[in-house]
Amino acid sequence: MAIETELTKKLGISAPVLLAPMGMVSGGRLAAAVTSAGGLGMIGGGYCDSDWVRKEIKEAGNIQVGVGFITWALERNPGLLDIVIAQRPKAIFLSFGQLGRFVAPVKQADLPLIAQIQSVEQARIAVEEGADIIVAQGTEAGGHGSARSTLPLVPAVVDAVGNVPVVAAGGIADGRGLAAALMLGASGVLCGTAFLAADEALAHPNVKGAVVSASGDRTSRGKVFDTIRGYDWPSPWNIRTLVNDFSRRWESDSEGLQRDLEQQKANYAAARDAGDVSVTAVIAGEAVDLIHAQQPAADILNAMVAQAEDLLLRGPAFLTSGR
Amino acid sequence: MAIETELTKKLGISAPVLLAPMGMVSGGRLAAAVTSAGGLGMIGGGYCDSDWVRKEIKEAGNIQVGVGFITWALERNPGLLDIVIAQRPKAIFLSFGQLGRFVAPVKQADLPLIAQIQSVEQARIAVEEGADIIVAQGTEAGGHGSARSTLPLVPAVVDAVGNVPVVAAGGIADGRGLAAALMLGASGVLCGTAFLAADEALAHPNVKGAVVSASGDRTSRGKVFDTIRGYDWPSPWNIRTLVNDFSRRWESDSEGLQRDLEQQKANYAAARDAGDVSVTAVIAGEAVDLIHAQQPAADILNAMVAQAEDLLLRGPAFLTSGR
Repeated sequence: MAIETELTKKLGISAPVLLAPMGMVSGGRLAAAVTSAGGLGMIGGGYCDSDWVRKEIKEAGNIQVGVGFITWALERNPGLLDIVIAQRPKAIFLSFGQLGRFVAPVKQADLPLIAQIQSVEQARIAVEEGADIIVAQGTEAGGHGSARSTLPLVPAVVDAVGNVPVVAAGGIADGRGLAAALMLGASGVLCGTAFLAADEALAHPNVKGAVVSASGDRTSRGKVFDTIRGYDWPSPWNIRTLVNDFSRRWESDSEGLQRDLEQQKANYAAARDAGDVSVTAVIAGEAVDLIHAQQPAADILNAMVAQAEDLLLRGPAFLTSGR
Repeated sequence: MAIETELTKKLGISAPVLLAPMGMVSGGRLAAAVTSAGGLGMIGGGYCDSDWVRKEIKEAGNIQVGVGFITWALERNPGLLDIVIAQRPKAIFLSFGQLGRFVAPVKQADLPLIAQIQSVEQARIAVEEGADIIVAQGTEAGGHGSARSTLPLVPAVVDAVGNVPVVAAGGIADGRGLAAALMLGASGVLCGTAFLAADEALAHPNVKGAVVSASGDRTSRGKVFDTIRGYDWPSPWNIRTLVNDFSRRWESDSEGLQRDLEQQKANYAAARDAGDVSVTAVIAGEAVDLIHAQQPAADILNAMVAQAEDLLLRGPAFLTSGR
């Protein structure tokens, strides 16, 4: 049994689940595990550290994975795209900026171009630019994102982009979310937080522990973790993390943080290396409520798909028997 | 054919769709129309103007409707609850504050107590206090609300509250949203924005026109429309509206608004009476993308249910054929 959609057909995969290319977390091992389980794993190209990306592509070995980039960061190191394309990844994923000059090389290499957007307007532009697949990402997602929520964003994007497959991202970490996304008109889902505590994820053990025990009531979007890490993110994007001592202290006092920045940066680096999750960013979304264990990525994906299959099969039962 | 859930059984209704009790918009006619079409209509008790609430209950005539209150506002005029209970409404709905002393009179009258919450923690408390039905409201909802998004909030609340039926609210305006909510484990949906442009809604024609033409990309949560209307909303709630000239001018300059408040209040009142939607609040959620016409409430509800039924029946087809 398998869930078949336009997305699975287009990518030649057996499960409509994409791994979010989380920077420094979605490495080659995690991406390969998600692909091996039937989905599409994607390495997080993040801020375009060429050495790291090359190393992780090698780590995936013979398993075909995609590679995702922060578009505005790729603008500063555009040569990395050619290096990655030369490795024949399964797809190129771009988010946070217009596709622009990156469309041509991806098309020329005949690779699927996956564009993640955060609004209906951005979806229309990405399709005009040549995106093959649209990921509609809601604000509940962990990490960088914007203001719109997944549930109303997905059907609006589906209506706006015609025949281009739409993937739902943000807030999805189990089969209920996958089945719901399909009802909204999406052809699949993209999950980050769901795989953050996977065995293969390159996150500190304490970060994984925090994800397993966290409440979705205790995440927020803000700027301080980008400030302290020295990333100058453009508007309208900011970053969702678990709320912790550091974010509580500084989110409402950006001027104070600026005044003490060098000292705080040193403290932060030490806390990050020590896995002190009261200070370092735990970059997770609202779906943390649904994550109860650290386990292999294949188990996460298989459980998600099995639950969704069960719910889809039971769809007609809503019309006769209750629940 | 009908969608049967724990919600429809508990309330004795034939469609799992509740009308959000929008203050000054969900009057007796709209509530009666939604009940007559098979859902549960609820009159918006809002800031507890007793005369208005009594008039609208009368307006519903023999059609049984519920009545919804802003809990913290009801604290200031608690006698209104007894007046409403004496009219034998179909249910009492409370949102924005702990249920507290209002549980006893509702239970005593043997009426279903519907509690709307905006976090998992609030859901747990409401169930402990005695709520019969939980409405889990996401930030994408129009009007007052908080920070969490519907898609991840609903399954987390379902997991937290045991056998109490959960209703999804925020971002739902068509059958796709209804079917998705059922997949998430909800027993139904509560819709406000979907009915804001209904023929029977007590909204200015220009407000209805703005809802029909608006993009979900152009709504935001803020405080200025409460400031200008003189409502002192407690944290963590704020109000989602369409972005317009007024919100753009003042949302980032609350001090400036305070300095000029009397003059601005006069301007605002005039704009509201004139239906000038560049100034007056159009209290709508992100689901405005999905609203394309002004029409009778029964047509809105029937289309939503028919589309959801179709999607639920097609659920098993995902497992064999594509889309």
